[in-house]
Amino acid sequence: MQVQVIDNVLKLNDEVAAMNRQTLHEAGVLTLNLIGGPGSGKTTLLEATLRHMALEGERDRLRLGICVGDLATTRDADRLHRWCDQVVQVNTGKGCHLDANQVRQAIARLDLSALDILVIENVGNLICPVGFDLGEDFKVGLFSTTEGDDKPAKHPHLLAAAHVLLLNKIDLLPYVSFNLEHFHDDVRRLNPYAVVLPVAAEQDEIGPWLKWLRVCKATPPRHQQ
Amino acid sequence: MQVQVIDNVLKLNDEVAAMNRQTLHEAGVLTLNLIGGPGSGKTTLLEATLRHMALEGERDRLRLGICVGDLATTRDADRLHRWCDQVVQVNTGKGCHLDANQVRQAIARLDLSALDILVIENVGNLICPVGFDLGEDFKVGLFSTTEGDDKPAKHPHLLAAAHVLLLNKIDLLPYVSFNLEHFHDDVRRLNPYAVVLPVAAEQDEIGPWLKWLRVCKATPPRHQQ
Repeated sequence: MQVQVIDNVLKLNDEVAAMNRQTLHEAGVLTLNLIGGPGSGKTTLLEATLRHMALEGERDRLRLGICVGDLATTRDADRLHRWCDQVVQVNTGKGCHLDANQVRQAIARLDLSALDILVIENVGNLICPVGFDLGEDFKVGLFSTTEGDDKPAKHPHLLAAAHVLLLNKIDLLPYVSFNLEHFHDDVRRLNPYAVVLPVAAEQDEIGPWLKWLRVCKATPPRHQQ
Repeated sequence: MQVQVIDNVLKLNDEVAAMNRQTLHEAGVLTLNLIGGPGSGKTTLLEATLRHMALEGERDRLRLGICVGDLATTRDADRLHRWCDQVVQVNTGKGCHLDANQVRQAIARLDLSALDILVIENVGNLICPVGFDLGEDFKVGLFSTTEGDDKPAKHPHLLAAAHVLLLNKIDLLPYVSFNLEHFHDDVRRLNPYAVVLPVAAEQDEIGPWLKWLRVCKATPPRHQQ
């Protein structure tokens, strides 16, 4: 009986995720599901991304919208709202991940016709968010050097699901125990197709990520799925 | 119907947790449930703790056993096993927390009569582990400076449940954005009774934690509950 109920919950989620995906594709919005541990730098990355876009010329600007999940507080949304009008916060209470229905409600509050990319900043957690399709085109995994080089090996499900991985806080490498070779070896072993983008969001060094966003947006997501 | 099933799962967990607690109390073992995000330094803290105990004289030595949870790999158990015979790994697959039944099975593999303290290193996750009683005497929350000072505010359930909080990677404070005052203000607001112990596990600077362990062990846990 328990398994049946869990099956139904996931099946229902998948149905709503498919609706989200259709809505977002029809609006021409590329959607990313950003998954990282607590304090890995998800919001700082998005702050830097929005700041860069604000400084871009009209021709090169990507119009971003953000849906941000957290147990409590609107701190992340407040930080992002300084740079972007289209920010929706979802507070999950004790919920350890966003689900497709929460994202469906968030999408309804955004003006999709004015967006190129929607980034869904998931709840800070490397585990459960992986299991819930939100309707995104790509899952983006975010690790940071201060978490240690063993995180890919310990999170094989995220590795298998992610299309791209960011390695944040690359500027702190001199101060922490982190073997880049071990990290890359594990990534290659678990997902040979995943690109790894080194960034230092706090230092505003996010060039590889901005480039990836532009390339990704230039190819219609429906052909990439 | 769904709520009923979830109630039953939690009720069953609580019943097994009560059995664990009784077993551990009868054996005179103080039990700690260590909860922290991925890469916050749980295993490094325990490595340093075991190393310190190995160097202590017989009279001052606390005999530790470790039950360590992870999605995959035995890396943490391997690291700890160098310093301690009584280490049991629980691999949870996609499970984002340990439950009381997993701990019950782990306890059965340990010689409790040869232990003073059992530390259960939970799966790297600040959310779901808080909701599952394992039979511990105390929940220990572990944050690190590299995660940012907003983690207490974002995890009020952990704050309310934890008896003690460790703030790890204190040596990296000069290199990260972290306002100690904001951190402590949030902790006090959410749990005025929680002690905060600053440590730098990677640098082997864990004095306040070792002292807390000794004081805690000196008072029988059944009187502290």
